[in-house]
Amino acid sequence: MQFAARLDNVETSAIRELFKLLGKPGIISFAGGFPDSAMFDVEGLKAASARALAEEPGGALQYGATEGYDPLREQLAAFMAGKGVHVEPAGLIVTTGSQQALDLLGKTLISPGDRVIVEGPTFLATIQCFRLYGAQVISAPIDADGVDPERLEQLVVQHKPKFIYLIPTFGNPSGATLSLARRRKVLEMAVRHQVPVVEDDPYGDLYFDAAPPPSLMALTAQVPGSREWLVHCGSLSKVLSPGLRIGWMIGPADLLAKATMCKQFSDAHTSTFAQATAAQYLRSGRMPETLAHVRKTYGERAHAMGTALTRELGDAVRFTQPGGGLFFWVRLTGARGKIADATELARRAIEKLVAFVPGAPFYAENPDIATLRLSFATANVEKIEEGIARLAKAL
Amino acid sequence: MQFAARLDNVETSAIRELFKLLGKPGIISFAGGFPDSAMFDVEGLKAASARALAEEPGGALQYGATEGYDPLREQLAAFMAGKGVHVEPAGLIVTTGSQQALDLLGKTLISPGDRVIVEGPTFLATIQCFRLYGAQVISAPIDADGVDPERLEQLVVQHKPKFIYLIPTFGNPSGATLSLARRRKVLEMAVRHQVPVVEDDPYGDLYFDAAPPPSLMALTAQVPGSREWLVHCGSLSKVLSPGLRIGWMIGPADLLAKATMCKQFSDAHTSTFAQATAAQYLRSGRMPETLAHVRKTYGERAHAMGTALTRELGDAVRFTQPGGGLFFWVRLTGARGKIADATELARRAIEKLVAFVPGAPFYAENPDIATLRLSFATANVEKIEEGIARLAKAL
Repeated sequence: MQFAARLDNVETSAIRELFKLLGKPGIISFAGGFPDSAMFDVEGLKAASARALAEEPGGALQYGATEGYDPLREQLAAFMAGKGVHVEPAGLIVTTGSQQALDLLGKTLISPGDRVIVEGPTFLATIQCFRLYGAQVISAPIDADGVDPERLEQLVVQHKPKFIYLIPTFGNPSGATLSLARRRKVLEMAVRHQVPVVEDDPYGDLYFDAAPPPSLMALTAQVPGSREWLVHCGSLSKVLSPGLRIGWMIGPADLLAKATMCKQFSDAHTSTFAQATAAQYLRSGRMPETLAHVRKTYGERAHAMGTALTRELGDAVRFTQPGGGLFFWVRLTGARGKIADATELARRAIEKLVAFVPGAPFYAENPDIATLRLSFATANVEKIEEGIARLAKAL
Repeated sequence: MQFAARLDNVETSAIRELFKLLGKPGIISFAGGFPDSAMFDVEGLKAASARALAEEPGGALQYGATEGYDPLREQLAAFMAGKGVHVEPAGLIVTTGSQQALDLLGKTLISPGDRVIVEGPTFLATIQCFRLYGAQVISAPIDADGVDPERLEQLVVQHKPKFIYLIPTFGNPSGATLSLARRRKVLEMAVRHQVPVVEDDPYGDLYFDAAPPPSLMALTAQVPGSREWLVHCGSLSKVLSPGLRIGWMIGPADLLAKATMCKQFSDAHTSTFAQATAAQYLRSGRMPETLAHVRKTYGERAHAMGTALTRELGDAVRFTQPGGGLFFWVRLTGARGKIADATELARRAIEKLVAFVPGAPFYAENPDIATLRLSFATANVEKIEEGIARLAKAL
């Protein structure tokens, strides 16, 4: 069979090959990007789903509006209001996970050859998703405070991108959080150059101590004109359940209308059964307790991992302790003749029964082969300590 | 904001405007393409969802494989075996409704400028979906026995299409069913010209008396080489619940692999919550009774509509009584000076409080403006008789 030319723009993920090795018995994995299944509020979701089918069987089982199920849009608008974002229910559309929001942005905005700026490193599936629509993906460098706005502006001037994609809060894979000052600069730059900025925010609720700065979407209220250039993607995947596939997108009305049209031909609408269940769950008032639980648990694990990394690996690695999210972003220093190639280390680590993902595939260009991503989400504190000790041996 | 060039290839649906009028109080609607919500086995689905969350909460709520949730793939393979199709669970992928199967076929196969042959008329969202990927959509004429294989072969020779898309059984909007002899010819032609044929089969289980001919996929066993050129799309939407968004696709292994890669960047995977619920439902053994119930109810309604059309509209219309599915496809004859423009009739019908969809938008090219589609799925027998009487007045 002869496939479409767009498939030539993507490679099968290098990470996929690695994941095949994760079934090895006894392995401790820091490789996944998953939340911990043990965090899921199964009882709360069971009750929510039963209520959805009892109270609104037509809504939960019939075809629904492409834009989303209205009771869920209302709950999501209220959820966003709690985070300082004022949006009408009609000002957001529901997506099949935030992955679909990325796909709809690609479909709606990217013509073959268009340029898109992302962070280097960024979420792997974003790069591939945009490339499938023919985008040339450009990397903007980041540090522990997120993307550098001056460098970003230079790249915007140079490449005239269709849009900029950022994960400003507890980034994947970087763990980095864009500082408040930089957030304002990014919004001002978006207005100045009339370039849309996409804020992907699946991790913002997963903070451990202090809350992160307000989202770019919340800050648009302080930067005149910026709301017209900002798209915000939210998700219940990391805080409640990825299996529901519930994400949402807030943005300018004309963009949402086009994205809705594209979504009509992508999957007609997101499962109303999942949407009605999520709406009932949010209405039940259990979310704050669920969030407190995941924040506490992940916070303990992040603390354990940071401590173990410092103790076991010392000057062989450099990292910034993340204040939230699921990931440590670690750079091998090569100090005292230690390995500085994360792919080589990953191979040796598998032999010592510990797994992680090398950082290189997360770069759209100019990969830093000394970097790696460690997830602390799915192993408990004891396993984290054991796993980092194994990593030290592999090193 | 500047949108992608691909959006220039689609128009907002003419039907959408019509649907806005359907909220008028007292209206009887034959316009939808929906199953009747009263047919949903709410109790069965409630039990299935509770079991999914009790027995497999990790599977139902966590991220899942892009190809689909294995217990559901096993159930779907067994479901297909009951319809004469032999497929391993790994030989099908789960899609977010069959709309997503169409989207993945577009993404995987269509390069801008490629030609795709569909039936004239065909499912509206198919035409738009393929056009969004840049396809030039060609129409093959159909009659009450489905597409004409000789004419189809001529079009294949002339246009060298990337693939052919058919709804061979109780087509939407045509209600037509491809005869057994023509099915064989289509498969032989696919092998002869090495052209993929997509069989979209959401309605095949909704037969009223005699079962329709075996699906093209079932018949590939009788036509050497044809399985390599056939893609089959199935769906639970019309027989169980559209709100679950559970479809599936069977096809050659290389195509499924590419479609899976595309799906990874489209929505990561179909809701595992919906997949686990569907798997539990199929395992519960309630499906045969559910199918018997919908067949009986829709059969009565189809009978009532056919009788009323003949009685009330006489020689002003021509139609073939459908043996299954959800639709009558009616052609206005213009006899005795009656209206022969279905769009004009639709306007007058709304005034008489009855709604239907004109046929013209269902044609990718050369629309027949005298045609219209009537759904008998959601109105009961009494409403159907009243609605057709109103239609006669409008005419």
